[in-house]
Amino acid sequence: MKFGGTSVADTDKIRNVARRMVATHETGRPTVGVVSAMGETTDTLAALAAEVSPRPHPREMDMLLSTGERITAALCAMAIEDMGHRAVSLTGSQAGIVTDTRHTNAKIVDIRPKRITEALDAGMIVLVAGFQGVSTAYDVTTLGRGASDLTAVALAAALGGDCEIYTDVEGVYTADPRIVPDARKLARVSPLEMLEMAGSGARVLQLRSVEFARNHGVPIHVRSTFSGTEGTWIREDPSMEDAIISGITHTVDEAYVTLTDVPDKPGTAAGIFNAVAAAGINVDTIIQNAVTHGDADVTFSIPRDDLPLMTDTIEGLCRVLGLHWGVDDTAGKISMIGAGMKSHPGVAARMFQTLADHGINVRMIATSPIKVSCVIARDKVDEAVLALHDAFQVELELAQSGAAHA
Amino acid sequence: MKFGGTSVADTDKIRNVARRMVATHETGRPTVGVVSAMGETTDTLAALAAEVSPRPHPREMDMLLSTGERITAALCAMAIEDMGHRAVSLTGSQAGIVTDTRHTNAKIVDIRPKRITEALDAGMIVLVAGFQGVSTAYDVTTLGRGASDLTAVALAAALGGDCEIYTDVEGVYTADPRIVPDARKLARVSPLEMLEMAGSGARVLQLRSVEFARNHGVPIHVRSTFSGTEGTWIREDPSMEDAIISGITHTVDEAYVTLTDVPDKPGTAAGIFNAVAAAGINVDTIIQNAVTHGDADVTFSIPRDDLPLMTDTIEGLCRVLGLHWGVDDTAGKISMIGAGMKSHPGVAARMFQTLADHGINVRMIATSPIKVSCVIARDKVDEAVLALHDAFQVELELAQSGAAHA
Repeated sequence: MKFGGTSVADTDKIRNVARRMVATHETGRPTVGVVSAMGETTDTLAALAAEVSPRPHPREMDMLLSTGERITAALCAMAIEDMGHRAVSLTGSQAGIVTDTRHTNAKIVDIRPKRITEALDAGMIVLVAGFQGVSTAYDVTTLGRGASDLTAVALAAALGGDCEIYTDVEGVYTADPRIVPDARKLARVSPLEMLEMAGSGARVLQLRSVEFARNHGVPIHVRSTFSGTEGTWIREDPSMEDAIISGITHTVDEAYVTLTDVPDKPGTAAGIFNAVAAAGINVDTIIQNAVTHGDADVTFSIPRDDLPLMTDTIEGLCRVLGLHWGVDDTAGKISMIGAGMKSHPGVAARMFQTLADHGINVRMIATSPIKVSCVIARDKVDEAVLALHDAFQVELELAQSGAAHA
Repeated sequence: MKFGGTSVADTDKIRNVARRMVATHETGRPTVGVVSAMGETTDTLAALAAEVSPRPHPREMDMLLSTGERITAALCAMAIEDMGHRAVSLTGSQAGIVTDTRHTNAKIVDIRPKRITEALDAGMIVLVAGFQGVSTAYDVTTLGRGASDLTAVALAAALGGDCEIYTDVEGVYTADPRIVPDARKLARVSPLEMLEMAGSGARVLQLRSVEFARNHGVPIHVRSTFSGTEGTWIREDPSMEDAIISGITHTVDEAYVTLTDVPDKPGTAAGIFNAVAAAGINVDTIIQNAVTHGDADVTFSIPRDDLPLMTDTIEGLCRVLGLHWGVDDTAGKISMIGAGMKSHPGVAARMFQTLADHGINVRMIATSPIKVSCVIARDKVDEAVLALHDAFQVELELAQSGAAHA
């Protein structure tokens, strides 16, 4: 059972979370809770770091940020004990989450959940501080923003259980309900669709956690902390027909970097993206148009927050390779996702037409077998999402009802 | 170099602390900083715990409270790195501070400073999160309120160095300068005197840290974080004559528990104080008057904060032993301390006379070879301290100048 920052934002909410864990435990199921930092704690800590240093040392950043989840885990354990049940909180290190040494964005290399299983066997509810582990050099590491989801999925895989992600929404919707009032909750989404959704702006689950769950066959149940209703299951269901469109996602958190005069020879792209990866920057979409006269343009999206970090890297790269570059920080991206799309080729064309009908210019296009993404003006994103949800209403209703009655 | 909560209360102050450590390191001395939690962080965390549980589980309390010092240590290390020096922050566990398993008030059982010495050998400034360790059961423990001083002294003992305690006052004074405007800073105090001062209300150093320093021969220099002046050295100096009176201390943080009808037979007192100790309560003064008719009265002081915790213990004890008890929560204590007092027997008499001249009634008296303490009405404490500082002005001036010119 994983509870995000809004679910544990104050001590009343922490007691509510404790009650939910106790209720689950009382059904006889061994229960592990993974918790995020309370509310805005992580941002507050990061702001303190920015006050002492414009580029805080990554190892120290991890030492700092990892405290937020420990506070929540300890408070949850206290609340459970106060309700007459036994509980114990564990740090990522104590929970056996071993990572590499890449601070602030470490990868899990092993899970050794000995202390968890011992505590479960002793009848205790176990709280684990999310988002963190211990490196092979015995330093505290963190797993990247939103990685408490990953902690939960990885522990579910290691312990052999389902993973319940409790959040402030009721599940996965056909579009963001804050933009589309009649967006509908999906009863089930396939892991591959969820992967594309998470990768294209759906904030309900962290991308890496969906990837991990898919690779390890961990079923995820996304549901609300504050209501008792069923949420959305993310799992395979071979008995079901694939939905043509499962959902429409969007993001306004990306900037688009375009490199021009990229020499058309083998290894250039590799050189570029090795340098970007070495700077620890997560590139999402990469687009390279067909080479027509010698040099190519390559565009890729990066998190807007990484723009300052990116600048040095990309400037060095351009100097070495003789490239030029520019940034578009006025764009957003909308995506349509559906596992059945691959056998219904008309989706992209209808999407472009819908946008054209609303006078929305498409700056870039990227596709996968189950997704079409368009980069448009950032201030047109909401309108585009509404228009597409309306245009594909029939398909989205099928997705929802098909899943719901499976 | 140990920096308390007021010295690291915000990021500007943390950068100031970082500069001080860098300056020391630049003189070529291997430098270890021990830091407390920022400002009121520990109180804020304790308040959160109280909101989720009236009696938070001690193990979880330690998991919670230990985060405060980690935050400061990481921020200090970042600030030092930002100034172009290398630094690393370590938790109590990483610093090798091994304790017993008594949560919230653990005792240090071993110091294994391997990571500290390795980092020092690599030319780094080492930051250690104060107040905490790791138990022999691999759980996070804390060492009790104010125990960052103890962390610093214990590390100085293990590493073989001096211990500098940076605080918001200039050193150890002949009396609390907030009450006595012409109180004077002492250049030196003997460890035994400092022990009595810390035990009787001087807040500048935690009692246990003074005890540890005295047992291990660690010289302590108490000085201001905010000025560059010399503070007070706490160390033996056999070349000096003992001062008759070194200082006047006071406390208003104690309650006085009196047990009546205590049977006058061997083992009773042991039974009482074993039970009190088992509840984890630190008893300071114990007074038992002469037995004149069969049963005795025993009075002891406890921290006022421990009164709620105490109530259960003492009631159980009284039931078993057939005692009665009462609490005086309206009293304070003033103490006069001086290593030369033992060869100048008139001090106690002059103290009682001074109090009598001011119409201040003495409720209890306790003495040691180098201290006389009087329990009086709490609201008379300030007046008593002023009166005594005035009455013993000549002796206190000698103490200060004798120490200063040694």
